[in-house]
Amino acid sequence: MDTNKKLVAEKAVEEIKDGMTVGLGSGSTVYWMLQALGERVKDGLEIVGIPTSQKTEKLAKELGIPLADFSSVDGIDLAIDGADEVDPHLNLLKGGGGSLVREKIVDILAKRLIIIVDETKVVDYLGTFPLPVEVVPFGWETTSKRIAEYGCLPRRREQNGEAFISDNGNYILDCDFESIEKPAELHENLKMLVGVVETGLFINMADVVMVGHAGMVDVLTKA
Amino acid sequence: MDTNKKLVAEKAVEEIKDGMTVGLGSGSTVYWMLQALGERVKDGLEIVGIPTSQKTEKLAKELGIPLADFSSVDGIDLAIDGADEVDPHLNLLKGGGGSLVREKIVDILAKRLIIIVDETKVVDYLGTFPLPVEVVPFGWETTSKRIAEYGCLPRRREQNGEAFISDNGNYILDCDFESIEKPAELHENLKMLVGVVETGLFINMADVVMVGHAGMVDVLTKA
Repeated sequence: MDTNKKLVAEKAVEEIKDGMTVGLGSGSTVYWMLQALGERVKDGLEIVGIPTSQKTEKLAKELGIPLADFSSVDGIDLAIDGADEVDPHLNLLKGGGGSLVREKIVDILAKRLIIIVDETKVVDYLGTFPLPVEVVPFGWETTSKRIAEYGCLPRRREQNGEAFISDNGNYILDCDFESIEKPAELHENLKMLVGVVETGLFINMADVVMVGHAGMVDVLTKA
Repeated sequence: MDTNKKLVAEKAVEEIKDGMTVGLGSGSTVYWMLQALGERVKDGLEIVGIPTSQKTEKLAKELGIPLADFSSVDGIDLAIDGADEVDPHLNLLKGGGGSLVREKIVDILAKRLIIIVDETKVVDYLGTFPLPVEVVPFGWETTSKRIAEYGCLPRRREQNGEAFISDNGNYILDCDFESIEKPAELHENLKMLVGVVETGLFINMADVVMVGHAGMVDVLTKA
């Protein structure tokens, strides 16, 4: 599986050109992307990276990839990010790593968004992976009840026996929908709820999805 | 003006009955409501209050009003809150005090929401008072640009020369729209933006608006 991740990561890094400002996503496939990008930077590629999580920031620094603060850049030429699930319309379910707000803020600003996954992430319908929804801690129990009315079982994410806290100081509710028939509608309904900061549904955002499987890379683009 | 605020506050407190769980709003008119409620509690009224801000919590404690943690209650019978502006459809603009998220979470859960204001807060159209919008600090500059596209000048709220931080650890952008023709639509557009946590537009939430003016109280109810 790591072979596929590595392969697709290397393929995506080929899209990075000199002078670009590049959004650096998070997750296990992005790990390989950072390795490949670090190599190219050593070979002289000049880019500036915008990390979407503290973990990505740390690894990018170790690999010598130049970083800039998000607030200091005017735009992002290209973002490369992973996903927990991808559907045939290139809609994404993300947030397993807990950085969905930062990822979405960076990915939405990018002129072009490339998603890199292995074949295990490609699904007919999103939702087998529980949907992460970031919520304000105050009153999270009532927010959770409102979310449940859309047909799921929300569970507050925990870490070492305590509530997991996002980069933004919020909670994450992992919402088990089993199958999401209308992701755009569900995202809108959930995002409109008071107390909800953002959902892990990335609708109509990906320009390209690269899928690694059996030593090959499939490139899916918007219809 | 304080006479009107005191009068309307006392009128609203008459609606509080024994055994109720009561949402306690924030602001200068709510100050008088808490004073009147404190008197009634001294006289034997048994209620539990849910404060919507640290300021309200502090004052209620000083006045001997019993409080409960929001997470410990099943529902709220009645909430009494102020507003920065009220329009003829009883839509509200709130958040001048910076507690809009907590206020909205409490107010929306209340079976009945009474808004208390003096006549200076009643307007034909919302928006003369800059609309407070709570946003995630990460990437707030780009969030601000997206909000501006809806026809306003957003300004990040400051306090003592630094960014004002909400109870939820976020920034507040005060967005000068001058006049908001379609508040429901604007709220939906802004709330859908990535990075926006909540807006200060409280649409279709108030059941009753009590307006103090010239020593009298007008009671406005939903048409």
